[in-house]
Amino acid sequence: MYSLEELDRIIERMTGVVCREKEPCNLYDPIGYMMSIGGKRIRPKMCLLTYGLFSNQYDNSILYPAMALEMFHEFTLLHDDIMDKSDTRRGHTTVYRKWNQNIAILSGDVMSIEAYRLLGSVNPKYLKKAMDLFTDMAVKVCEGQQYDMDFENLPFITMDDYMSMIGLKTAVLIACSAKMGALLAGAPDEVCDALYRYGYQIGLAFQITDDYLDTFGNERTFGKKIGGDIANNKKTWLLVEAFRLADASQRRTLEELLNLDDSHKEEKFDSMRRLYEDLGVKEKAIEAMDLCKRKADESIAAVNLSDVQKNLMDSFANQLIYREK
Amino acid sequence: MYSLEELDRIIERMTGVVCREKEPCNLYDPIGYMMSIGGKRIRPKMCLLTYGLFSNQYDNSILYPAMALEMFHEFTLLHDDIMDKSDTRRGHTTVYRKWNQNIAILSGDVMSIEAYRLLGSVNPKYLKKAMDLFTDMAVKVCEGQQYDMDFENLPFITMDDYMSMIGLKTAVLIACSAKMGALLAGAPDEVCDALYRYGYQIGLAFQITDDYLDTFGNERTFGKKIGGDIANNKKTWLLVEAFRLADASQRRTLEELLNLDDSHKEEKFDSMRRLYEDLGVKEKAIEAMDLCKRKADESIAAVNLSDVQKNLMDSFANQLIYREK
Repeated sequence: MYSLEELDRIIERMTGVVCREKEPCNLYDPIGYMMSIGGKRIRPKMCLLTYGLFSNQYDNSILYPAMALEMFHEFTLLHDDIMDKSDTRRGHTTVYRKWNQNIAILSGDVMSIEAYRLLGSVNPKYLKKAMDLFTDMAVKVCEGQQYDMDFENLPFITMDDYMSMIGLKTAVLIACSAKMGALLAGAPDEVCDALYRYGYQIGLAFQITDDYLDTFGNERTFGKKIGGDIANNKKTWLLVEAFRLADASQRRTLEELLNLDDSHKEEKFDSMRRLYEDLGVKEKAIEAMDLCKRKADESIAAVNLSDVQKNLMDSFANQLIYREK
Repeated sequence: MYSLEELDRIIERMTGVVCREKEPCNLYDPIGYMMSIGGKRIRPKMCLLTYGLFSNQYDNSILYPAMALEMFHEFTLLHDDIMDKSDTRRGHTTVYRKWNQNIAILSGDVMSIEAYRLLGSVNPKYLKKAMDLFTDMAVKVCEGQQYDMDFENLPFITMDDYMSMIGLKTAVLIACSAKMGALLAGAPDEVCDALYRYGYQIGLAFQITDDYLDTFGNERTFGKKIGGDIANNKKTWLLVEAFRLADASQRRTLEELLNLDDSHKEEKFDSMRRLYEDLGVKEKAIEAMDLCKRKADESIAAVNLSDVQKNLMDSFANQLIYREK
């Protein structure tokens, strides 16, 4: 098995391989740019990690499909940036701003197709299963993005609404990545399904952490501005939980804060954060992450893994959940 | 073999089957809408037609993949309408206008994924080949769209530029459809490739006809406004050919006409059409269609088809090329 650092290096090399310069450059340059500006490469890493639990044969029939997961993820970000009118992504100008909107739409379209091309490198005996798994995931990610946009127009959503939405938008891709590695390594169906449930829980925790850091993160270690979610009234885990825990008077305060306009940005952030702390939302978020992590571990309790394998999985999961940036 | 009318009815029924109502409705309603507002269904028809040359076993393993071609085509139109800021398509409000831009982007994304889901219904023994054929086509269509947008900013393109662009944007999808049917019916590789070349030439002719009708079509039989290409200075077959044939003085006239603004729309259309006629561009366009049709026929001359089969293919090709709308 490769270490997490070795997997990082493999993925970095593969990123160069899958993004060759091609014509027309207005179509392919944005793809190379998007793939090169980084990110955590969580999805291919998860896929290579679970593959390594059952096989040592690392060749293109696993490396390319692992990159298909990253290519698909980056495609969704590229289109999300248009929909959200985001100017920057990971400290770089977004494709839609650096080139233009039409180029961003079309480059994204090609990335989703390229993801299928990369997926096509699997051993033919797994192609049907891999394609079904991937397509099911891809549709769900789009559904999650649509629910997320729909929720923006609702005054209120329940915790169930929220968890279903991030399940679709974030968790199924990490679940698919975990299952894909096992599937392509020839693991039995029940093991593949266990790893899917594992990845799903890790994915939920990962998103709760994302929401947590945007309010409680340290800007220095986080490496980017915090507070965007509060400024935009985003329906995060924290806000949904706050509404769940608030009494009538706190609920009124929450609603007043949501109605504050941009000129009160700092006051809004400080008051909202204080209210979250008063309500115990900060600790509850950590508990929610812990619960997901426990459920993840339970999902694979019956899978026969060595201590070395368990430790490797665990240290990756902890990096994803209990991270500072 | 089914007649062309029977194929139309089969495709109409399948359109209802592949567009079921699903949640979230802001994601799926636009897909049902886009698929329901019609179009010529050329691609699935071509696919079912070439399938019928080699097999009579019509089941979901051919019907769904045929619909994948239509789903992909409609996806490209949905995103093209955003890029072109088009208000109407086939006499109906475009998705981007009827809902909004973000919904149009995301619904299109799901359609391209749904196309792969439909394709996944092929007999597993053909899955790898079908997926490679489809993905190669899909990437090329996007490249063609990018060249088309790039060309808008160029003062001049050659006939080679134009033919390559419509080859990518229009012809490869019809070529892929023709080959897909043969492939899924188990036809030998050289026959599949011959049908690809056949479809490619039919596709080129189809696009030249499209350009022709936008200037020389009869609005009553055409069923929609003509003259849009001239108004928008679109680099059509007619304009490219006109530049190729023009002498120095006619070239100056062409450039003056291209510089006329919207307030001279009718004068511009009438003068441009007259210039095309003076240059013989109108007849040359018909000759170009004839040449493509001849090349198409030559491509499949070596394929062993009965007279009935040949006639059916021919009557479909003629409907596509020598059409009035």
